[in-house]
Amino acid sequence: MMKDRIINIGILGLGTVGQGVIKVFESNRSFIDQKTYPYQIVVKKIADKEEAKIYPYKQYRKIFTKSAEELLNDPEIDIVVEVIGGFEPAKSFIIQALQSGKHVVTANKEVIARAGYEILEVAQKNKRYFLFEASVASGIPIIGAITRSLTSYKLKEIVAILNGTTNYILSRMNEEEGDLKEIWKEAQSRGYAEANPSKDVNGFDSFNKIFILSAIAFRAKINPEKIYYEGIENISPLDIRYARELGYTIKLLALAKDYNHCLDIRVHPALIPSKHTLANIYGVYNGVLLRGEDFGDLTFSGLGAGSLPAGSMVVSDIIEITNNFDHYYNYYNYFQEKVIRDFKETISPFYLRIRVKDRPGVLAEIASSFARQQVSFASVIQKGDAGEIVDIVFLTHLAREGSVQEALKEVAKLNCVESIGNLIRVVQI
Amino acid sequence: MMKDRIINIGILGLGTVGQGVIKVFESNRSFIDQKTYPYQIVVKKIADKEEAKIYPYKQYRKIFTKSAEELLNDPEIDIVVEVIGGFEPAKSFIIQALQSGKHVVTANKEVIARAGYEILEVAQKNKRYFLFEASVASGIPIIGAITRSLTSYKLKEIVAILNGTTNYILSRMNEEEGDLKEIWKEAQSRGYAEANPSKDVNGFDSFNKIFILSAIAFRAKINPEKIYYEGIENISPLDIRYARELGYTIKLLALAKDYNHCLDIRVHPALIPSKHTLANIYGVYNGVLLRGEDFGDLTFSGLGAGSLPAGSMVVSDIIEITNNFDHYYNYYNYFQEKVIRDFKETISPFYLRIRVKDRPGVLAEIASSFARQQVSFASVIQKGDAGEIVDIVFLTHLAREGSVQEALKEVAKLNCVESIGNLIRVVQI
Repeated sequence: MMKDRIINIGILGLGTVGQGVIKVFESNRSFIDQKTYPYQIVVKKIADKEEAKIYPYKQYRKIFTKSAEELLNDPEIDIVVEVIGGFEPAKSFIIQALQSGKHVVTANKEVIARAGYEILEVAQKNKRYFLFEASVASGIPIIGAITRSLTSYKLKEIVAILNGTTNYILSRMNEEEGDLKEIWKEAQSRGYAEANPSKDVNGFDSFNKIFILSAIAFRAKINPEKIYYEGIENISPLDIRYARELGYTIKLLALAKDYNHCLDIRVHPALIPSKHTLANIYGVYNGVLLRGEDFGDLTFSGLGAGSLPAGSMVVSDIIEITNNFDHYYNYYNYFQEKVIRDFKETISPFYLRIRVKDRPGVLAEIASSFARQQVSFASVIQKGDAGEIVDIVFLTHLAREGSVQEALKEVAKLNCVESIGNLIRVVQI
Repeated sequence: MMKDRIINIGILGLGTVGQGVIKVFESNRSFIDQKTYPYQIVVKKIADKEEAKIYPYKQYRKIFTKSAEELLNDPEIDIVVEVIGGFEPAKSFIIQALQSGKHVVTANKEVIARAGYEILEVAQKNKRYFLFEASVASGIPIIGAITRSLTSYKLKEIVAILNGTTNYILSRMNEEEGDLKEIWKEAQSRGYAEANPSKDVNGFDSFNKIFILSAIAFRAKINPEKIYYEGIENISPLDIRYARELGYTIKLLALAKDYNHCLDIRVHPALIPSKHTLANIYGVYNGVLLRGEDFGDLTFSGLGAGSLPAGSMVVSDIIEITNNFDHYYNYYNYFQEKVIRDFKETISPFYLRIRVKDRPGVLAEIASSFARQQVSFASVIQKGDAGEIVDIVFLTHLAREGSVQEALKEVAKLNCVESIGNLIRVVQI
């Protein structure tokens, strides 16, 4: 009988994802062994700065260390699982591991967004795997689908909901017309919101993820600093209600489109038709729609975060490496430099909510400011009872982002205008 | 510079899928070459019984042959693409190819459903790949997701819409309250319905596909003959309307659940809640929902058939083999024998439509027949105006399939009963 070969892994970081990795190995051991036979995966070391984190996992106490260096310097460790999160020291640890001949699996979207190309180069030079399925929409195997399954045709467009916290908040606001801040506090207490909440709410988390998806889907080398992102801070219950009345649902969308000469990539709240599949992805679920040429829409939905979804995807990556252990395959053998299109050049319809003094001539004044910028309206609806101050909701025809911004600056200065309530792009998926 | 290595493929069959394969290579050549570098895939031979099929593809005429044997005996061909369809001679060709050391890619669900285990054994004995992503829900990379990405946790349940033709027909019936036969004729003229229509409409196509998905998702060796399947022949516009009024949509579902000691696998029309993701998959689209333990629902939707979706998945499989050409990985290294649970033991709520003579006491007579079989009702609604003959629609509580069948036999004999309109299972996803 063939003797088992041992693949040793070292887990760096025992937070939510690290604990998920341990749990997945615990509960699916025999199942995983069957998948990797004749190899067997063994957790050899676990490192975390906080010793207390290992206490609940009695059987792992003797392999625990507070020193990341000890783990990284262990010559018997084949695969390092980096689940510390954040940029440094995670990035240096990953580079060190690859340079010393170890494979690396991570769930760290921030490291990939900021240093992914550099890390992949080090990995390729050392013929080591650097895999990161858990970094984007963790319960959905979207990176595997793009890099392993959808290899025969060019993807052209991605429309995605990539942040579970904001999707949960928007879903709740939609159901209850509740306030963002209160719902967010509850999301945090339930563990849906990350340690640094602003990274979810301000769109930064979605920005990291759409950058990663765009880079691998379009095989593009892009400068992430050129990508526009905006969060849901300014979405009020009013916007959600008005959008619904117009047949739309507000979602925080991450969008990417390949125009060959350039890429259009952006993150912002958007009105999408309420009947669309993506509008019906609720709560902490994520959704990703991929569009190729002549292939229709391929849509995935699943849990976007959580200890077990992320942990299981990390383990799937470890299994993938194990099954290709004696045979190095370079998943990312080329990237082509691409520029990001200036966000001001984006064309879309817009939802605009403007608070005005309710008196004759208001509409004419506003409309002529927009007309000077070539922005015209598909519909104009006054909301609320007549009174001192009312909301007017405009839906524009297709208009240039930069022109709408210019017009709004002018409109804000009008005497009849109390304030600009909101500007939200409409995405006709 | 590294010299390109040539991987020669031979295409058996130039029907819809075979032509799709050619088109994908034509339009994405440089893209595919980048993915497979330093290998290059070359179409070396194409075989079909009908010579006329090659005429539109001028540049391939000189590599065309009417002889499958000639292609199978070409020692330079590395990968055989079997896209003839049907059981024989496809099965014999596949076995012959594998035995002579060639890899095989197929889109042929019927061959896999009837001889998949046998073929996989031959493939493994010869250390050759036998891949079949295009055989199920062709535009959705569901087999890749299960075998490559979701390797770390046990899948427990599959709920799927796997036949585009019937989904198109049901969607149209739902929109227009039209008749099945007329809509089906149109589907055929648009190319959505297969050559042998009954295989779509009677559930046989979905049966083949859910068998394949169950076998690989649960790693189960099962006897397909024990799987119950039923088509949409008996769905009338009345059922669609009554279901909608009750908050349900009728879909042809393929269901599979792993109970460890046995598997519950079946194909039949079902009432599902109208708000559910699967209820909102329209037209020729397919949908697959996978459920693990603690991982929430992972749902895929995409085109279920067509020249390009199927062709591109075949080419993706060819790329997969090319990228693992020097390193044989056995994707299917074990299957465990599992029995299929007797369909009569299935428990679900039922929708029953019964035509009765409209007179006092009818309900009592019917209800007592059901009561003798321990079947009770959640709701009973009389449909249509009072008159000679009316429809009564019953929704039962959870009931055993066998008991409902027994009760219906008795009910059919009642004097007050004109006919049994329909019995449709309710699936609470």
